[in-house]
Amino acid sequence: MTASRSEQRSGSMCSIARSLDVLGDRWTLLIIREAFYGVTRFADFRAVLGVAPDVLTERLHRLVGAGVLERRPYREQGSRPRHDYHLTAAGRELRVVLGALQQWGDAYRPAPGGPPVVRRTDANGSEVRVAFVDDADRVVPVEDVRFVRTADAPPGS
Amino acid sequence: MTASRSEQRSGSMCSIARSLDVLGDRWTLLIIREAFYGVTRFADFRAVLGVAPDVLTERLHRLVGAGVLERRPYREQGSRPRHDYHLTAAGRELRVVLGALQQWGDAYRPAPGGPPVVRRTDANGSEVRVAFVDDADRVVPVEDVRFVRTADAPPGS
Repeated sequence: MTASRSEQRSGSMCSIARSLDVLGDRWTLLIIREAFYGVTRFADFRAVLGVAPDVLTERLHRLVGAGVLERRPYREQGSRPRHDYHLTAAGRELRVVLGALQQWGDAYRPAPGGPPVVRRTDANGSEVRVAFVDDADRVVPVEDVRFVRTADAPPGS
Repeated sequence: MTASRSEQRSGSMCSIARSLDVLGDRWTLLIIREAFYGVTRFADFRAVLGVAPDVLTERLHRLVGAGVLERRPYREQGSRPRHDYHLTAAGRELRVVLGALQQWGDAYRPAPGGPPVVRRTDANGSEVRVAFVDDADRVVPVEDVRFVRTADAPPGS
């Protein structure tokens, strides 16, 4: 039996949907954002985000399972061994997704209080933005970009 | 009373959070994806996504309120006047966000069935990818990008 159009589009056939399975949750993205700011310890995620501990536990567990965070042991002197949470290579690549979200929010959801408080910069401090580039690394305007189904995509995907 | 760190980080102080207020929901992003594929009518969104009508109504209403979609009237001959839903400029700019999600999913959440079914291309059919670029439009590697709080950011933001 052929998968319904929604299954084909929303399930395994679409990487946007698969990314959202990992990311499509506000707490999850905020946890990842804090991980980019250098937060690694459970108590620090809690303090910064104000998230309930059971929610945090569940989200961290899912992110480890999804290969975005990895647990590493640490031990402070005189304390029991514990673990903290570090971004993997996949996790670090999410910087592009977060940058895109931030850039769109800066442009289209202006902050009530004034200009953006976070800039995206390269190692020299110059501003960077998220854009489409072609295989020669030339910028391609958003309006020229197409999302094209490949020739062998199943009908309705 | 100073806003808690979580309020400052998660509320108005962070455009990632404000973008997520609009987008941080699986159905919403799937609706936007379909809008990019050219879907405009309620019945077509329903047919493709398999979403319950009350959920679809609510999400479309929110997207119109958020300035991502706009309602336009149409009328088929012999039928009552209806409305359909079109991307605004803000909506079209979400292509970068969707492209970033898709690209990450292609790399880190491989499809069980094989290669990606959707390519991102420019008007000539060349592949494009989402990347950081500096103000001279040069590509900046992900690992060189920093998210930096501006000097006047409130403590904890």
